[in-house]
Amino acid sequence: MKTEKIELAHGEGARLTHELISRLFKHYFSNPYLDLLHDAAVLPNPNGRLAFTTDSYVIHPIFFAGGDIGKLAVCGTINDLSMVGAKPLYLTTGYILEEGMPYADLERVVCSMAGTAKEAGVEIVAGDTKVVERGSADKIFINTAGIGWISNEVNLSPGNIREGDKIIVSGSIGDHGMAILCLREGLEFSTSLVSDCAPLNGLVQTILGRHRGVRAMRDPTRGGLATALVELAQSSGLGFEVEERCVPAHESVRAACELLGLDVFYVANEGKLILIVAPEEAEAVLRTMQNHPLGREASMIGQVVERHPQKVALKTILGVRRVMEMLAGAQLPRIC
Amino acid sequence: MKTEKIELAHGEGARLTHELISRLFKHYFSNPYLDLLHDAAVLPNPNGRLAFTTDSYVIHPIFFAGGDIGKLAVCGTINDLSMVGAKPLYLTTGYILEEGMPYADLERVVCSMAGTAKEAGVEIVAGDTKVVERGSADKIFINTAGIGWISNEVNLSPGNIREGDKIIVSGSIGDHGMAILCLREGLEFSTSLVSDCAPLNGLVQTILGRHRGVRAMRDPTRGGLATALVELAQSSGLGFEVEERCVPAHESVRAACELLGLDVFYVANEGKLILIVAPEEAEAVLRTMQNHPLGREASMIGQVVERHPQKVALKTILGVRRVMEMLAGAQLPRIC
Repeated sequence: MKTEKIELAHGEGARLTHELISRLFKHYFSNPYLDLLHDAAVLPNPNGRLAFTTDSYVIHPIFFAGGDIGKLAVCGTINDLSMVGAKPLYLTTGYILEEGMPYADLERVVCSMAGTAKEAGVEIVAGDTKVVERGSADKIFINTAGIGWISNEVNLSPGNIREGDKIIVSGSIGDHGMAILCLREGLEFSTSLVSDCAPLNGLVQTILGRHRGVRAMRDPTRGGLATALVELAQSSGLGFEVEERCVPAHESVRAACELLGLDVFYVANEGKLILIVAPEEAEAVLRTMQNHPLGREASMIGQVVERHPQKVALKTILGVRRVMEMLAGAQLPRIC
Repeated sequence: MKTEKIELAHGEGARLTHELISRLFKHYFSNPYLDLLHDAAVLPNPNGRLAFTTDSYVIHPIFFAGGDIGKLAVCGTINDLSMVGAKPLYLTTGYILEEGMPYADLERVVCSMAGTAKEAGVEIVAGDTKVVERGSADKIFINTAGIGWISNEVNLSPGNIREGDKIIVSGSIGDHGMAILCLREGLEFSTSLVSDCAPLNGLVQTILGRHRGVRAMRDPTRGGLATALVELAQSSGLGFEVEERCVPAHESVRAACELLGLDVFYVANEGKLILIVAPEEAEAVLRTMQNHPLGREASMIGQVVERHPQKVALKTILGVRRVMEMLAGAQLPRIC
């Protein structure tokens, strides 16, 4: 089908985004680094490998329980670097501001970025500011780009995944998406809906420093856990089996999803990661994670199989098996 | 004066932008790399130095004589890397698209980016796409970030500038700004108003490959030649003297400026650079530039003096001396 106009779903990190990437961006920009479509590009460097990534942040509203657009912009890019096994070092930041934006809001965002960068041990080393006329943007959009170094011992890629590998998720899913959605819709489910927005580099460096059996990682942001699992399964060429009862989610998130008719597997996260780990190391990796503040609720949720290649099969709580698809339609624009 | 709201002038690369950078961004993000405020951050690396920069592009209209927002987004970031003496290698690109944007326009922009990157010998290695609701952005905003390597023999910094150094500009000024302004206002001055948008890395690498006497470089984008010269003079701690009659500008640009009451020294450029060169090498550098397609109209426009430190004195065509200031008020929003 020919695309004539950009739709909101082109920006959701799901099926239409994938089409845009493969038909347009890969078509024109094709090169060995981009074509891998990992969370960050891994680049050759005479002295080890360099990771390089970027993300724009357009979240609405810009302040929310658990964070704000600034914290999100720092965490998101740190997390993309972490997913390829890099130690994030430097960030740049580009602001697109709407004329008339309160200065105090900008300062709150900048202050939050500085605090998050400090907490994560990265430096913001360059930036740019543009201002557009009132009505030409919505308050503030932020882009961050980041670079990090990958140690020679680290080699993560969906291509490394083997039959029998275990699938681990680092904690409860759906917190970020439900916090934003309920805030936006003015739904008061109690104060327990808080975004999980967090920099994952500390957790990732701890895992990689102790264990050699990690095959691949991905952070389930836009499109949620389901979309990230399908992406990993497709890249690996193998099948994934996931047990619904093993997937952690907070009771408040499950209740809000039920009320709103949403599937928690498709709700965005901003401080979680999926790991695919060699079976003999899976238990040890899980314990390492559970001893870290950002991995306390880590859980082994499934395994890699040879059956149904490139597909993710979910065994539901009711014992039914169904195939998980990527997020297709519009679920929630401007979630990050 | 306390800033309460973001004004368009905060995004013009002139005085209010400088205030925003020093009072807000430097205040919160301060580190040795950012604080230098060069065109790109220069970062230590076990094997030589790395340059890292970012820019967002919000130009309106997105297609213009001599280029489009995509070409501009690639050239601008390549040029920022080039200004610190780096050889640009890799770019990332982040898109913020407005719902309903014609796909054909996006494809035209992407195609232009790919062509410009190829021409300049850089690879676009990662990207991100967000879509916001109709009315929440103006068609398309693009962010590019870039990294490049700096050879050990290259060391450019305004701190290297010495009394007696010569000031060279690589060609006619004001082409980009006047092309955009006249297009936007529907003024038809003939087809001779064409943006100078171009990647400068080829010219810069040619100069740096042959000459060791280059002290510092800057590209006079937002804020024009005057603002870039004042920035260089302030960073060097020395005075600059510029001869107006030596500054090249196309007749059509001068005529359009006169009609609109604009000063060509403050009009944006996107394919020009200013060099500060040791006096004994200045003539040789000028000849090298004039033999390159992007430096044919290069001209020596002044010199560095000890008098009036941190100020730029212009000797006008009428023989009057006046101090050049940074661009202060709003001249032209969304020029890049």
